[in-house]
Amino acid sequence: MFTARHRLELPSLPKLANPKLEAELKERIDQKTKPPGSLGRLESLAIQLGLILNSTNPQIVDPQIRVFAADHGLTDEGVSAFPKAVTQQMVLNFLAGGAAINVFARQHGISLKVVDAGVDGDFEPHPDLIALKVMRGTRNSLQTAAMNADECIQAVVCGMGLVREAPGNLLIVGEMGIGNTSAASLLLSKLGCVPIETCVGPGTGLQDNGIKHKTQVLAQVLHKHRNLKNPLEVLAAMGGLEVAMMVGALLQAASQRRILLIDGFIASSALLVAEKLQPGVKDFAIFSHHSAEPGHSQLLELLEATPLLDLQMCLGEGTGAVVAFPLLKSALGFLNEMASFSTAGVSNKA
Amino acid sequence: MFTARHRLELPSLPKLANPKLEAELKERIDQKTKPPGSLGRLESLAIQLGLILNSTNPQIVDPQIRVFAADHGLTDEGVSAFPKAVTQQMVLNFLAGGAAINVFARQHGISLKVVDAGVDGDFEPHPDLIALKVMRGTRNSLQTAAMNADECIQAVVCGMGLVREAPGNLLIVGEMGIGNTSAASLLLSKLGCVPIETCVGPGTGLQDNGIKHKTQVLAQVLHKHRNLKNPLEVLAAMGGLEVAMMVGALLQAASQRRILLIDGFIASSALLVAEKLQPGVKDFAIFSHHSAEPGHSQLLELLEATPLLDLQMCLGEGTGAVVAFPLLKSALGFLNEMASFSTAGVSNKA
Repeated sequence: MFTARHRLELPSLPKLANPKLEAELKERIDQKTKPPGSLGRLESLAIQLGLILNSTNPQIVDPQIRVFAADHGLTDEGVSAFPKAVTQQMVLNFLAGGAAINVFARQHGISLKVVDAGVDGDFEPHPDLIALKVMRGTRNSLQTAAMNADECIQAVVCGMGLVREAPGNLLIVGEMGIGNTSAASLLLSKLGCVPIETCVGPGTGLQDNGIKHKTQVLAQVLHKHRNLKNPLEVLAAMGGLEVAMMVGALLQAASQRRILLIDGFIASSALLVAEKLQPGVKDFAIFSHHSAEPGHSQLLELLEATPLLDLQMCLGEGTGAVVAFPLLKSALGFLNEMASFSTAGVSNKA
Repeated sequence: MFTARHRLELPSLPKLANPKLEAELKERIDQKTKPPGSLGRLESLAIQLGLILNSTNPQIVDPQIRVFAADHGLTDEGVSAFPKAVTQQMVLNFLAGGAAINVFARQHGISLKVVDAGVDGDFEPHPDLIALKVMRGTRNSLQTAAMNADECIQAVVCGMGLVREAPGNLLIVGEMGIGNTSAASLLLSKLGCVPIETCVGPGTGLQDNGIKHKTQVLAQVLHKHRNLKNPLEVLAAMGGLEVAMMVGALLQAASQRRILLIDGFIASSALLVAEKLQPGVKDFAIFSHHSAEPGHSQLLELLEATPLLDLQMCLGEGTGAVVAFPLLKSALGFLNEMASFSTAGVSNKA
């Protein structure tokens, strides 16, 4: 139960709107040797990145990905196609460099650390592992709150702390947690006021019967926690430890003017919680891709987001965000490196 | 006029279909530590790249971009928002490294050469310039054929020759030619049997009146050349020197099992001509992006293509293709570098 002593100190957000800077960025773009507007989304992306980094000459420095891993008590109800043990196994796979996120992060030179937010298993120390286990997985949210107030706040605060210490000015939060599409669906349905049926999908690969069962379980979970309103209480009751830590990471990163490069369904659900706690966080977000997980469309609508990619990916781990990362570099590349009409001696419009 | 002596020797295409290799690629992908299908389009992309390169372990080697530049006699009719002189000016901009395509090619380590296919202006020799000028721009296709048979065949053969000598196994054909959206619209309308109104757009930035005028001019050009049927004759009558050279480049590249990474409207129009000349060429093509130029949707439909990106870009030069290039590297990265369930000790489905 949340009581008066459970207060979460949220970092304040810097002001993003800056009409003067925005006009300067637009002017700079319109002088480039190309028809006006012909770089499409890359142009609006360059402007948003300039506003976040507060510069006419924005540069991405030392981009970081943190993959948050945790287990979910709700997997006892058979809501996932894969066994719970896979969370721990995949963390070892991340640490060995063999997962998709490792491959893509190496491709683009993004530093990757894995965060044990609450895996139901033990790990040897490893240079790429940040050990912040709050508990060995959440409780079964069909029976009780997934986290109590202390645990939930601890997870959020840990997320803030690890970003505060992290280098660079761009953050991707990825995740691994068997059962976490269920948590994300619950958060989406409750905080977005949308029917649970439209929030549920196959996750790691449920068939129709499995989706039907998952939907029934989630409807019962929502019913059990129907009286909650406060977003932090909702997060504690139905979220996950990795989701809570991602919420803290996003809040902290935005407060430091880092670019939030948002992955798919789970990362977007964390951003939704963050936005409910601190409205305006989402303006620091670039939406990397439209996930194939059905509920993501709803989430994107709630967040008023149009993602860069739509490649029917639904792996999580941060993979969609990392795959989209070079588009951000292209946006800044053209802004910072292209010649202007005058310097290149190219005639402007007839 | 095309006569019996105007024969174009087309390189033959290797057979792409290979059910055994395709099954091996699928099996390899399904063993990776991720839910089946969760990398979406990257998975089908990896299979297509494996088939083109004829390998279960395909690698992109020394990717190349050739930017073909030429002028268009039809610009005398006021079909473009920019003056014709911009073609030559932009070639100098490419050679100085200041254009968008230079920035993106540098970002991804793609070798770029500029090809003078028929610019109405002279250039000093330059290490990055391939001088293959067929003539100083095409003739005005409202008055006569843009190229005669010899000129058109020369352009196509030059395109073949320069690819034959090029290193690497991936080719992007980009272009620069004030007036070339008109040529592409004409080729699309004629070879695709679609009304010209649906093929015309703003190009470099025409307003509504300009588009109306452009459409009227193009309708007259189509009427003048209405009796032509043969795709090579259509190309000569209404195409451009850079488009003809791109056609040759694509045909040659496919014959050598190179990956054709297709840019936007103009590059797709060249591929349409190539496909009419040598059916099956398009199976070697990856469609990088959906251009904002309205006719591109029609072209993509004719070519049965679903592009990777839709970022409302319409710059040409090959920029859409180069911006999409890292997605191909991601597809091959996961195929070649990810761990399998067995090697990583990760449990497969419950």
